[in-house]
Amino acid sequence: MKIALDGFGGDHAPLAMLEGAALAVAEYGVDVVITGDEAVLRKTALEHNISLAGLEFSDTKDVIGICEEPTTLLQEHRDSSLGRAFTLLSEGKVDALVSAGSTGAIVVGGTFLIKRIKGIKRAAIASMVPCENGSYLLVDAGANTDCRPEMLHQFAMMGSMYLESVRGIQRPRVGLVNIGAEETKGGQLQKDTYHLLEQDKNLNFTGNLEARGIPLGEADVVVCDGFTGNVILKLSEGWGKFLNNTLKDLFLTGFAGKFSAALLLKKISGLRKRMNYKEYGGAPLLGVTKPVIKAHGSSDKLAISKAIYQAKLVVEQQMIARITKALADQKEEG
Amino acid sequence: MKIALDGFGGDHAPLAMLEGAALAVAEYGVDVVITGDEAVLRKTALEHNISLAGLEFSDTKDVIGICEEPTTLLQEHRDSSLGRAFTLLSEGKVDALVSAGSTGAIVVGGTFLIKRIKGIKRAAIASMVPCENGSYLLVDAGANTDCRPEMLHQFAMMGSMYLESVRGIQRPRVGLVNIGAEETKGGQLQKDTYHLLEQDKNLNFTGNLEARGIPLGEADVVVCDGFTGNVILKLSEGWGKFLNNTLKDLFLTGFAGKFSAALLLKKISGLRKRMNYKEYGGAPLLGVTKPVIKAHGSSDKLAISKAIYQAKLVVEQQMIARITKALADQKEEG
Repeated sequence: MKIALDGFGGDHAPLAMLEGAALAVAEYGVDVVITGDEAVLRKTALEHNISLAGLEFSDTKDVIGICEEPTTLLQEHRDSSLGRAFTLLSEGKVDALVSAGSTGAIVVGGTFLIKRIKGIKRAAIASMVPCENGSYLLVDAGANTDCRPEMLHQFAMMGSMYLESVRGIQRPRVGLVNIGAEETKGGQLQKDTYHLLEQDKNLNFTGNLEARGIPLGEADVVVCDGFTGNVILKLSEGWGKFLNNTLKDLFLTGFAGKFSAALLLKKISGLRKRMNYKEYGGAPLLGVTKPVIKAHGSSDKLAISKAIYQAKLVVEQQMIARITKALADQKEEG
Repeated sequence: MKIALDGFGGDHAPLAMLEGAALAVAEYGVDVVITGDEAVLRKTALEHNISLAGLEFSDTKDVIGICEEPTTLLQEHRDSSLGRAFTLLSEGKVDALVSAGSTGAIVVGGTFLIKRIKGIKRAAIASMVPCENGSYLLVDAGANTDCRPEMLHQFAMMGSMYLESVRGIQRPRVGLVNIGAEETKGGQLQKDTYHLLEQDKNLNFTGNLEARGIPLGEADVVVCDGFTGNVILKLSEGWGKFLNNTLKDLFLTGFAGKFSAALLLKKISGLRKRMNYKEYGGAPLLGVTKPVIKAHGSSDKLAISKAIYQAKLVVEQQMIARITKALADQKEEG
């Protein structure tokens, strides 16, 4: 299996990309094509003594910056490191794409260079977020600021299939983010979506989900518009940081703290590992015809390798074929 | 000073109301009028040995339930315990109102029975939420699902004045909740609000605020629509619960945990106190002509006493007169 990796997307590119790719080759037995300035990539690999086994380069000088208008990917930045990765994917030269670059540009590339699955109204970012009992899938985590009820319904459907096929969770509980538990709560978007979700017998819809229940693990698929989703994702990151700082403050200062840390080492490191988004791999762009994985902008080596692993699972589990089939079945039924 | 307390709003009414009122009388030197079924209130006080010094009763049998349509407060539940409290406030028989009842009904009562300050488009709930360095003010925390830019601008203005006058924070930093730091990010509501906030020289506007920065204390006044605000408020509560459970799991299980807890007792109890929303008193309904304070639905004795204290501060600091004057000044300038 061959995976394209955007060599110049993300805060720690290109070093973290090279290290992550090498780690993924070693751990998961995939081949990786890294896009971007080959001279810089080779020089960086040499300086950091990174093995090039299983790695290929696809040379291009241009990079699309994080602040640039996402649609420039289709024109002036068509042959940027990200654009090139999309070309490789659309031409079938790789099986999947991973990038830690701009979310907007990845959504644009997935939508216009790869295309949406027939019947899908909008592609959505689906992020795994840590919570008390493990983790949940948040869709949409930031691709679509404004949403219609049918879009949220499709997010619920695609999210459920992703958890079933890639994460092995049977009949995942779907919750609709709302400001109250009753079905009459929220704005028009929430009210209309509620009815669509309730009527879809293929979903395990558990009703409206007040945000209080999200970190406590009350749903497996947390459905909302991309503005709300992005707020939930980032607020959770902030809280994770806060929790981490709190543990540091408790345990790394003073004799009592250090002594306690030694006593509780296993528990604390388990907790920190569980709260580390890097362990959760990348976020798939659901709804497009080929596997596209968005890695966190601040991804390090570990996060990149996990995102590549994620891409491998999506390919192996034929997630996209499943979504496509389910949509076709649904159309037949309807 | 005399404060009306809705005796039958909230999960722990009427007992927590009686206990909280008695505590507030003792601690803050206020008088409290408790509304609701006097026979039940007196019986409960007797059974729990609660002092009635400084307390009065205003007898009414009806209660507006948490699931009832908020506007029923204006008709069939006009003389409920909450409706009666609004009557006392509107007739000038008390200086402020505190209720742990339905947010919707409190907003309706404030808006239609007390009226909005001239020029204010919508009343908003302003909640203090704990964060890393202390706490921040979230407006709107849930009164208005759909908002326009001028409304968010007024929330920012009122929130700043509240922090300045009641909490003594000079030039509080105002952040607009958005999905990116650049001013071009977000939907139309965010873009238009950004320009209004930027142009208002009376505000210390620090720009768009990504949700990651909220728990880390990057703004003092966190401005958003009521849907987003409610999600932020409740997600933060859920995370607080998660943090609390985590600390319990770390420290209350096993010998090493208990031993460490003993060593770190002071730090842990300080942290738990800081994360306890009950310490933060109630949330004022900003934008109405008299002091109305919403206490958390699950308020206990301590939370109710703090909410009453909050009401006292709002009266003493003449917060409403300040907002009214600032609006008049603004109108003159404009």
